[in-house]
Amino acid sequence: MKISDIGEFGLIGRINKVRGRPSPEVLAGIGDDAAALLFSRGAAVLATTDMLIDGVHFDLAYTDVFSLGWKSAAVNLSDIAAMGGAPRYCLTALAIPRHITVEDIEEFYRGFRALCARHGVRVVGGDTCASHRGLVISVTALGEAGRDGIVRRSGARPGDRIFVTGSLGDSAAGLELLKARGKGPGSKVPGEAKRLMERHLRPVPRIAWGMSIAAAGCATAMIDVSDGLVSDLGHLCRESGVGAEINEGGVPLSRALRSAAAGIKLRYGALRYALTGGEDYELLLAVPPERVRRLSGLVPGAREIGVFTRGRGIFMRDRQDRKRPAPSIGGYDHFSPGTGA
Amino acid sequence: MKISDIGEFGLIGRINKVRGRPSPEVLAGIGDDAAALLFSRGAAVLATTDMLIDGVHFDLAYTDVFSLGWKSAAVNLSDIAAMGGAPRYCLTALAIPRHITVEDIEEFYRGFRALCARHGVRVVGGDTCASHRGLVISVTALGEAGRDGIVRRSGARPGDRIFVTGSLGDSAAGLELLKARGKGPGSKVPGEAKRLMERHLRPVPRIAWGMSIAAAGCATAMIDVSDGLVSDLGHLCRESGVGAEINEGGVPLSRALRSAAAGIKLRYGALRYALTGGEDYELLLAVPPERVRRLSGLVPGAREIGVFTRGRGIFMRDRQDRKRPAPSIGGYDHFSPGTGA
Repeated sequence: MKISDIGEFGLIGRINKVRGRPSPEVLAGIGDDAAALLFSRGAAVLATTDMLIDGVHFDLAYTDVFSLGWKSAAVNLSDIAAMGGAPRYCLTALAIPRHITVEDIEEFYRGFRALCARHGVRVVGGDTCASHRGLVISVTALGEAGRDGIVRRSGARPGDRIFVTGSLGDSAAGLELLKARGKGPGSKVPGEAKRLMERHLRPVPRIAWGMSIAAAGCATAMIDVSDGLVSDLGHLCRESGVGAEINEGGVPLSRALRSAAAGIKLRYGALRYALTGGEDYELLLAVPPERVRRLSGLVPGAREIGVFTRGRGIFMRDRQDRKRPAPSIGGYDHFSPGTGA
Repeated sequence: MKISDIGEFGLIGRINKVRGRPSPEVLAGIGDDAAALLFSRGAAVLATTDMLIDGVHFDLAYTDVFSLGWKSAAVNLSDIAAMGGAPRYCLTALAIPRHITVEDIEEFYRGFRALCARHGVRVVGGDTCASHRGLVISVTALGEAGRDGIVRRSGARPGDRIFVTGSLGDSAAGLELLKARGKGPGSKVPGEAKRLMERHLRPVPRIAWGMSIAAAGCATAMIDVSDGLVSDLGHLCRESGVGAEINEGGVPLSRALRSAAAGIKLRYGALRYALTGGEDYELLLAVPPERVRRLSGLVPGAREIGVFTRGRGIFMRDRQDRKRPAPSIGGYDHFSPGTGA
């Protein structure tokens, strides 16, 4: 059986079966953004790992190595944020091909550390080896959270409101602009395009918001938007056993994205990038109606974009109140036959 | 500057400079087998990561995927053992090329879990993505230890005895036999050859011994033998600021290795595999003279092979009491020009 026959999530399901039964010490394991672990005493330790591969997750043709380091840290810290935890430590493993220089690696770690330093995270170890082919980056982030302060993917209930922080779609639009332009940011590009590119190259994980949300008990479920809004909402729904309706008019779009999409710079409308683009690293959460006011006081930048439902499936409701299935495009599956991976 | 100009350890030194100052919460970080971390309360959390790459660390031409899974777990758990800790959790990240089947991945995780289950270790998360080229495996192991029960690389003092568990050189000899023979073990090979191959394919980390040694306070420094005896002893000496003398007659050689080397099956003498071969995953430790008796009672399989010295450098003392520098071959450097990496 080829992996492309069952896809990434089919493969993960298979792996889980081989991996054995859950343990009460594992507060959250496979199927969540990060593992939440109980050690002998004290707080839960959160652990997450993500691998980035040249030609799959990034392309050095349009990514500078400082940004690559920054982003390698950010995508992992974002998983800790999505659990409501405080990131503390990172480990890195790099497989490095011949054409990468020492200066490149130093610059990679400058970017990595710049992001970590913003959040008080320390790089505590790792592994380095040669690659016969492309650059491979594997990062593990460890964080902590109170035993009862972890926000999983599985707690959303029908009637809970769907909230998202910040704005969506900028990263995917920025990627499209980068591909058309080459390595960046830095040289002369219009301000709006630069902002979109930066959101792709140097995403900022929503750590303080994640911790505030968890501490205030505002959310019944949470995930970071890495695959795309519809896809990640699908993960939340599947883990929680609910459906969802997105109000098209509620999806937050940045001024930069709207402006770039209104011009002729982008191939698609702004909403499409927001729904299926991915790599925004905003937080997507389920908020019971009675806690909406508390959340709004805590995270003014959070926007209500819909509601979780009893039925299955994810639907869009447009400004004329017409309902249609959410677009299923996007939500990157590394092993799907169509992606050529 | 090319990475091959400064080598793997030169590169690590450079990376450390970029990574910033140590913190009192990091009991052990870069430069040790695993990071030892203090979270808010309770025991120290040990974390380590290792990457294995097709064509660099293994070759599917002579490695079955069950063994590959087993070994991927074992090499990481061995790093926890070398700190004196109890391994608790693993995370895996795999980059998988097209030719690998679902069944291969399941078999990989069967092997991975078989080793983990022997030591009560749970696989708690990971990442899976497509590789355009070879298979890449990145594993992170988390363990715990008492705050005062961690054995680092840096505590050896002149006069401390050098001890090693088990026997050395089997893995390197087994690799040579596997390369000559193809995928194994399983089909008909002489018992001694099979045992050597198994030690290469399915190493057993010395977890119980590592924990006993740490709990009894027998060792001032410890490391696992992954690069080779001389190379790993060099790491201990460098971190501790001491030298070492190895008694040639004391180096433990298995019956299988001696027998295979005495025949015409191996290219070199048994001692060469033991000194420079690597991947034995035995524990190498520094034991003060007054604690030697306690260690021998605790780990009967540990052998005294020499003494740490005030001077720098590592020397061999042969059976005629003649002293010569230890062989510097081996001690795999992924970026050395000679290895073609």
